[in-house]
Amino acid sequence: MHFGNAWYPEHWPEERWEHDVKLMREAGTTVCRLAEFAWSSIEPTDGCYELEWIDRAITLLNKYGIATVLGTPTAAPPAWVTYYHPDTLAVDPTGRPASHGNRCHASANSPTYLKYSRRVVEHMARRFGNDTRVIGWQIDNEYHRVDYSDTAKRQFQHFLKDRFVTIDKLNEHWSTRYWSQTYDFWEQIPIPVGAHNPGLMLAFRQFVTFTWQEFQRHQIEAIRNNSHCGQWITTNLMGWFDGLDTYKVAKDLDFVSWDWYIGTGHHNYLNTGLIHDLNRGFKQKNFWVMETQPGTVNWSPNNNFLNKGEARVMAFHAAAHGADAFLYWQWRSAPGGQEQLHGSLLGADGNPRPFYEEASQIGSDFKRVSEALKDTTVKADVAILHSYEARWAINAQRHNSEFDPVQYMEQCYHPLARHNVSVDVISPNAPLEDYSLVVAPALNVLPDDTAAHITAWVQAGGVLLLTPRTGHKDEYDALHSTLQPGPLREVAGVEVQEYYSLYDRVPVEASWDGTSCGEGLIWAELLRPLSASTRVVAMYGASNGWLDGKPAATIHPFGEAGGKVIVVGAWLDERLQESLMLWVLAEAGLSGIESPPEVEITVRQAEDGRKVTFVINHGREARSVTLPASTAGQRDLLSDSIVPATISLPAYGVAVLANT
Amino acid sequence: MHFGNAWYPEHWPEERWEHDVKLMREAGTTVCRLAEFAWSSIEPTDGCYELEWIDRAITLLNKYGIATVLGTPTAAPPAWVTYYHPDTLAVDPTGRPASHGNRCHASANSPTYLKYSRRVVEHMARRFGNDTRVIGWQIDNEYHRVDYSDTAKRQFQHFLKDRFVTIDKLNEHWSTRYWSQTYDFWEQIPIPVGAHNPGLMLAFRQFVTFTWQEFQRHQIEAIRNNSHCGQWITTNLMGWFDGLDTYKVAKDLDFVSWDWYIGTGHHNYLNTGLIHDLNRGFKQKNFWVMETQPGTVNWSPNNNFLNKGEARVMAFHAAAHGADAFLYWQWRSAPGGQEQLHGSLLGADGNPRPFYEEASQIGSDFKRVSEALKDTTVKADVAILHSYEARWAINAQRHNSEFDPVQYMEQCYHPLARHNVSVDVISPNAPLEDYSLVVAPALNVLPDDTAAHITAWVQAGGVLLLTPRTGHKDEYDALHSTLQPGPLREVAGVEVQEYYSLYDRVPVEASWDGTSCGEGLIWAELLRPLSASTRVVAMYGASNGWLDGKPAATIHPFGEAGGKVIVVGAWLDERLQESLMLWVLAEAGLSGIESPPEVEITVRQAEDGRKVTFVINHGREARSVTLPASTAGQRDLLSDSIVPATISLPAYGVAVLANT
Amino acid sequence: MHFGNAWYPEHWPEERWEHDVKLMREAGTTVCRLAEFAWSSIEPTDGCYELEWIDRAITLLNKYGIATVLGTPTAAPPAWVTYYHPDTLAVDPTGRPASHGNRCHASANSPTYLKYSRRVVEHMARRFGNDTRVIGWQIDNEYHRVDYSDTAKRQFQHFLKDRFVTIDKLNEHWSTRYWSQTYDFWEQIPIPVGAHNPGLMLAFRQFVTFTWQEFQRHQIEAIRNNSHCGQWITTNLMGWFDGLDTYKVAKDLDFVSWDWYIGTGHHNYLNTGLIHDLNRGFKQKNFWVMETQPGTVNWSPNNNFLNKGEARVMAFHAAAHGADAFLYWQWRSAPGGQEQLHGSLLGADGNPRPFYEEASQIGSDFKRVSEALKDTTVKADVAILHSYEARWAINAQRHNSEFDPVQYMEQCYHPLARHNVSVDVISPNAPLEDYSLVVAPALNVLPDDTAAHITAWVQAGGVLLLTPRTGHKDEYDALHSTLQPGPLREVAGVEVQEYYSLYDRVPVEASWDGTSCGEGLIWAELLRPLSASTRVVAMYGASNGWLDGKPAATIHPFGEAGGKVIVVGAWLDERLQESLMLWVLAEAGLSGIESPPEVEITVRQAEDGRKVTFVINHGREARSVTLPASTAGQRDLLSDSIVPATISLPAYGVAVLANT
Repeated sequence: MHFGNAWYPEHWPEERWEHDVKLMREAGTTVCRLAEFAWSSIEPTDGCYELEWIDRAITLLNKYGIATVLGTPTAAPPAWVTYYHPDTLAVDPTGRPASHGNRCHASANSPTYLKYSRRVVEHMARRFGNDTRVIGWQIDNEYHRVDYSDTAKRQFQHFLKDRFVTIDKLNEHWSTRYWSQTYDFWEQIPIPVGAHNPGLMLAFRQFVTFTWQEFQRHQIEAIRNNSHCGQWITTNLMGWFDGLDTYKVAKDLDFVSWDWYIGTGHHNYLNTGLIHDLNRGFKQKNFWVMETQPGTVNWSPNNNFLNKGEARVMAFHAAAHGADAFLYWQWRSAPGGQEQLHGSLLGADGNPRPFYEEASQIGSDFKRVSEALKDTTVKADVAILHSYEARWAINAQRHNSEFDPVQYMEQCYHPLARHNVSVDVISPNAPLEDYSLVVAPALNVLPDDTAAHITAWVQAGGVLLLTPRTGHKDEYDALHSTLQPGPLREVAGVEVQEYYSLYDRVPVEASWDGTSCGEGLIWAELLRPLSASTRVVAMYGASNGWLDGKPAATIHPFGEAGGKVIVVGAWLDERLQESLMLWVLAEAGLSGIESPPEVEITVRQAEDGRKVTFVINHGREARSVTLPASTAGQRDLLSDSIVPATISLPAYGVAVLANT
Repeated sequence: MHFGNAWYPEHWPEERWEHDVKLMREAGTTVCRLAEFAWSSIEPTDGCYELEWIDRAITLLNKYGIATVLGTPTAAPPAWVTYYHPDTLAVDPTGRPASHGNRCHASANSPTYLKYSRRVVEHMARRFGNDTRVIGWQIDNEYHRVDYSDTAKRQFQHFLKDRFVTIDKLNEHWSTRYWSQTYDFWEQIPIPVGAHNPGLMLAFRQFVTFTWQEFQRHQIEAIRNNSHCGQWITTNLMGWFDGLDTYKVAKDLDFVSWDWYIGTGHHNYLNTGLIHDLNRGFKQKNFWVMETQPGTVNWSPNNNFLNKGEARVMAFHAAAHGADAFLYWQWRSAPGGQEQLHGSLLGADGNPRPFYEEASQIGSDFKRVSEALKDTTVKADVAILHSYEARWAINAQRHNSEFDPVQYMEQCYHPLARHNVSVDVISPNAPLEDYSLVVAPALNVLPDDTAAHITAWVQAGGVLLLTPRTGHKDEYDALHSTLQPGPLREVAGVEVQEYYSLYDRVPVEASWDGTSCGEGLIWAELLRPLSASTRVVAMYGASNGWLDGKPAATIHPFGEAGGKVIVVGAWLDERLQESLMLWVLAEAGLSGIESPPEVEITVRQAEDGRKVTFVINHGREARSVTLPASTAGQRDLLSDSIVPATISLPAYGVAVLANT
Repeated sequence: MHFGNAWYPEHWPEERWEHDVKLMREAGTTVCRLAEFAWSSIEPTDGCYELEWIDRAITLLNKYGIATVLGTPTAAPPAWVTYYHPDTLAVDPTGRPASHGNRCHASANSPTYLKYSRRVVEHMARRFGNDTRVIGWQIDNEYHRVDYSDTAKRQFQHFLKDRFVTIDKLNEHWSTRYWSQTYDFWEQIPIPVGAHNPGLMLAFRQFVTFTWQEFQRHQIEAIRNNSHCGQWITTNLMGWFDGLDTYKVAKDLDFVSWDWYIGTGHHNYLNTGLIHDLNRGFKQKNFWVMETQPGTVNWSPNNNFLNKGEARVMAFHAAAHGADAFLYWQWRSAPGGQEQLHGSLLGADGNPRPFYEEASQIGSDFKRVSEALKDTTVKADVAILHSYEARWAINAQRHNSEFDPVQYMEQCYHPLARHNVSVDVISPNAPLEDYSLVVAPALNVLPDDTAAHITAWVQAGGVLLLTPRTGHKDEYDALHSTLQPGPLREVAGVEVQEYYSLYDRVPVEASWDGTSCGEGLIWAELLRPLSASTRVVAMYGASNGWLDGKPAATIHPFGEAGGKVIVVGAWLDERLQESLMLWVLAEAGLSGIESPPEVEITVRQAEDGRKVTFVINHGREARSVTLPASTAGQRDLLSDSIVPATISLPAYGVAVLANT
């Protein structure tokens, strides 16, 4: 379990450095990220490299037992790049090139920029690629910029040609006879700005993903060609950001990391657990939290500070969900620059800020649990399917502005998290054989091969939960020529006769639910059973006339191996959704672990059977927690004491249980 | 009474077509609109036309007794037009040309575009202009795009030269010495973007109108020159849309049609009745509803579905206000394209959606009433004056952001509609002799000749209601040099000493009102009687000090024929406005018909005296309705039964009464 | 005490002029502003001047005893300037040049525009610079436009070179190694659009200030070189507008004037008193209200009218705070033009509007007090420090969007105003020796020399109040390398261990406060005393864990002369802030004057000791006011009667007391 921060020694006189590193060490730092954004210090003029200062920083860190991660500096080109090569500047949707001085103003589509980026990374890799004090690399920073230049447009047209081969095929998949959009040749195809043809919009997202894959590939090659000592490569992602398909970008990395920032307000473990699980799912392995806020950020409407103790539960929450490292951004702020007011561990005077004390506590806590966590990860019986294509399609045509696909995913996740059921968030194309239950929230875009993959798993005995807006579109964001859930109709034993964006809520009476009635909101689908074995388990009450007394949810056995598909047609109210999820769990032969409000119990385990149980009180009220029987006789690694059957956790209290 | 839909056969394989047309026929379809947006299928490359597929579609429709309306496809140019002729693309206010693939991206100001548009329409007209299976044409689609190109600017400057002849006259009417705007020659005059000189802004709106008149004229000529079998020409308008002066555009059409969409929420008959009446007023004849939603649209924040039964009351409500046709958009959605999720009659699987059943009911209902409605229209004793110039002027300078001229018109209309008083919404320059009462809501721009026209009608015995913001501006949006109501001061017997945008509401005590007091909001004008015969009928209570105890409304007899002018100075609260309108009706010797809440009673009549009475329950509660004596002994054409004096209408119930 | 208005005779036929001037005279007008915006009437074509009409207008005004102020017309270039010299048009942040017809579309950075501007002013000055009927000049109008052209960028780069001399020094002060911003040469530096490097953003604001100084200098030279009869020069400012540093622009003027508009809502004397004091502070002398609204404006969301009587209290409120003139904008509106609906004294019909009567009352009231006010001004014992750099820095990085530096200044000012304590609002670099108490609200940017200046004053016995966000940045908007209050740490005896943007309010218990507890909101700083003599006077209660039980305010004696520094760490609730300010006043040996709610008592005094006391009821309720003992036996100049010890003021009542 690594603990650390981002350090920018290039901002400070070298005589100060050792003092900083000593303070890091005292806070329990084991890893430090360097050189991100330092291009102008690395290559001050075209082709002249200064790398010795990095070596000296690495040496100092190493002296105090701190490993180095090198960031490639390509998210911040020096002024000479953009001034002499204006074609490196990204162009915005209105056609204006970015200007120098805010990061990420360069274009990943610019051949010139690719050349310079690759070259500086090559120089760094030649110098440090076999330096064992450097354990790994982070490529660039938070990929997100989209270029609308003519260069990007031409590349997009080539990308489409590679994909569709003939323009006729493109016209067909995109229904371009609609509004006379028909393209005669590739050069006529625009980059979409604002709403446009769904096929074109989806393809452009895929092209942006491709752009970043290529951009990243250049740097990965530059490193791999020069590194032969086991250094890994990652990049730092941005949670729910959907500007690109992270599954594709993650493929070429050793593992992913992400930047966890709260902004305004406070940590909500029910939501962030889902994001950790999402990141763990990108490569189905543990991840790093590469950046997180030392109390506060500087870019939010209200950059309020975390409560005292809140950062520590966040650290353990991340670990409990599979984080293998936790790094604060940043160590100390330069006197100037856009993020002057961002949280940091040292103040402007070079001394520890109050937060440093809490960070140090985390550092020493991590030491206590590190050994036990070795080679452990989260093992889940439940998978939630997550697809960028589905989110892009829905977000491009919400139909009801409140239908936020991420919020709907949270809606499905919360009951599981509240009952401490571990969940993997994975691509619909990932292997499913390890799961007893698969939940597919709003899996709008559903290609036939993906449907076949899911069907096979149900056939083999899996329990599948389908929801509103599932199976509506094919891989080109075109409507399936069958009703929803499209290619899953047969396995689901039901089809969607009509979908209704709701103006008023609709009553829903469900057989799985103990109380008399719940409600549907935002969206409701009218289900029509297709098979005699389909059982209706919920009905709509009187509302818009169309739904009155019609099926709202069904269950359908499929195959000989006990497979079942539950289909729910409406976005349910929170309580009814909870009772649905508990029933679905039971149908899959699963159950959760009870815990008091705001208390999370999560397990990491190793291949060899070792288990580490995290008990985390995310609340500001002390709680008494009855521990799972499996932890009987185990030791709390933090307090170093054997735990009783019931423990008392103070506000923001944490226990980490294991055999020792 | 036509019933139908928009069909895009070019999206589908031809072997499917007959199945579609049969389903249409089963739903009672009598008319189908084709070819709108089909330019790329009609002229796939420059000068090569493919029209046979349209002929085959017409033939099929005709086989099943369905007439065809042809849409000219010019709202969606093919890619070869915009790619080889970028001067055809409209330029937005920031100077950027539109890009291909969203409709209406071409410029009606582009000579190249006019040439290609006219040519394709000519080819269609030559082929189908004498085909009696085609009953009429729709030009383009929902005119609205404004071009800010240099070409448009030069045309605007020519338009101004034609209008003002000398630059001095323009300078004078626009007060250009103000802020040194003085123009030395026409080439200096810009297209206004954002707020600008009121005279310039009004003139630009008139130029945009002129642009569409010319654009339309080209197509009308292309058709008329080639059509000699009685085909009519219309275009589809957009309700309250004020981007152009529809009175001018309507002049060259045989009748108007409009596209009635609800978007979010539900049908409110008090508002939509006004829009129907507006459309009937454009040419003072019946109109078509060329497009309406089969349950839902796809472009609104919440595309909720109409309630079951709601579409049927909408159809009869349209008919009751003078619609002679009612067409759903669209029959079936292409698999792709921007409007994938729009309502349709068939689903993605090619089968009827649930809504198809309601549509079929409407189709068969229409058959029952069609004969009786022949040659009937609405005859009104009350006219509401509506002027685009007035709306443009107020919207450009609301003074109080809540002073929405359309909302104010609705405020005046609602009491009349609630009391089932038929209303014509007409241009202030239309003939007035058939009306007993004329209401002029916020007739801000009031040229002298219009005032003379109105004055003559009062002189002849008319009763006129004037309101806040009336008669403030001349035809150049310059202030009249007399106080409001400007050239109507004498006939009104009153002038506006001062106008006040209100921060707090002001008490209003009115002699016409039974209760002690109402309120003015948003706007109040201080009235000063100019004549001994002017009688003050309402007073302001204590508020901002200026209005306290001053006249808020007056009545003034004018002429020997019993003419009267009522002036009300304030935007009244809803209740007081209702009592005002009832009193004004009584002053004009008129009265309404009482009906339960949400029940509308409307009459269409023929020159020969035949009357058809619509009784429509717009609500979701059953109502008992006492019918007007005039319907005694008549038959409800829908239930085919003689009606008693009091009938019971279920939720969304409709009765159509006539002698048979 | 001057009273008057802005008159645009060029909009009207000359035969009308004398009628207007007579009506002005009857309203008590003593001064009239002419020629602002009249460039196209003064120089209708390039190099041809028409100035006789101005002379004739001056002659008429003089005939009726009215003095003239000439506005230079450079805020509205004629069409021939912008058409033939498009380089005179300002460019917006997206790169588009402004278009003709809205004022202020020219660029103060354009050499061509400077040439034409200077030339037209020279012609005016040659003609009227020695005309004693013209008492002064107003330069341009409401400076505010920013030019983003390449010309402006090059000038900005030169400005930076002049300031920093070497690019290395710039890089150092702006921490440009951050994000590889490092500049190699001046030509690489962009104009910032949106958020950017704080050093760059601050420097650009200073450059904009410099631009206006230069623009103004050209006109001042043109006038001064041709005027030798004692004419003064001013310009009309815009209240809190922070687009430029008014202290720098004011340096070259004889006095400042400002344009006082309410927009939506009503006059709040607690806020506008502060703006008057701000304007008086720009040159530490009396000012003019060059424009104010005759009841209403036309550009606000709701242009509601002032209440009857409200304008009169505004006039006396301005006078009480040091206004020597009060001019309505405008006399009469041209029939057209963008401000058609703005309030005016005459209506569209050329006759007085109702407001004219109230204006006339003010005119005759002013005559009664004018003699007594001669050579008097406000003398204050309290100064509030105001710095544009501090406001720019905070507004660029609010950190909490609710931390509005102007609102915080109001928060500090209100308790003083409510207790009738006169205040000077001055630059932190202004002389302080006349003040007993100095309040420094959020003095974020605090250069070392300014800190030394303030420290010296405390050393000499001053009492200083410091607040949240003080002393955080140096003159380049870089973080001080010591904690807040930076270079005032020693004199304050305290430093800020951490600052917290607040999500929830925090309890604050203060020893100066009689009640048990108040609250902090928006912002709280954790104070750490640095000296044994620092006394903690307020503590935080339990909130985010970091602040709990920590110091919230301190007092620290400094020097031998009785100097003290109070530091308060939190934005306090209104009640607690009031008790703080009263305690601080007492610490400084000062006290206020009690008065009923909404009643203001203010004094102007002359060097010879004469005092004039204004007693103004800003409310709509009558109040009984006990007068200060100092006014015993004085006469109310308005009612011309000796005042008793307690007077009764009606709603919007005013008394002006003096010995006579």
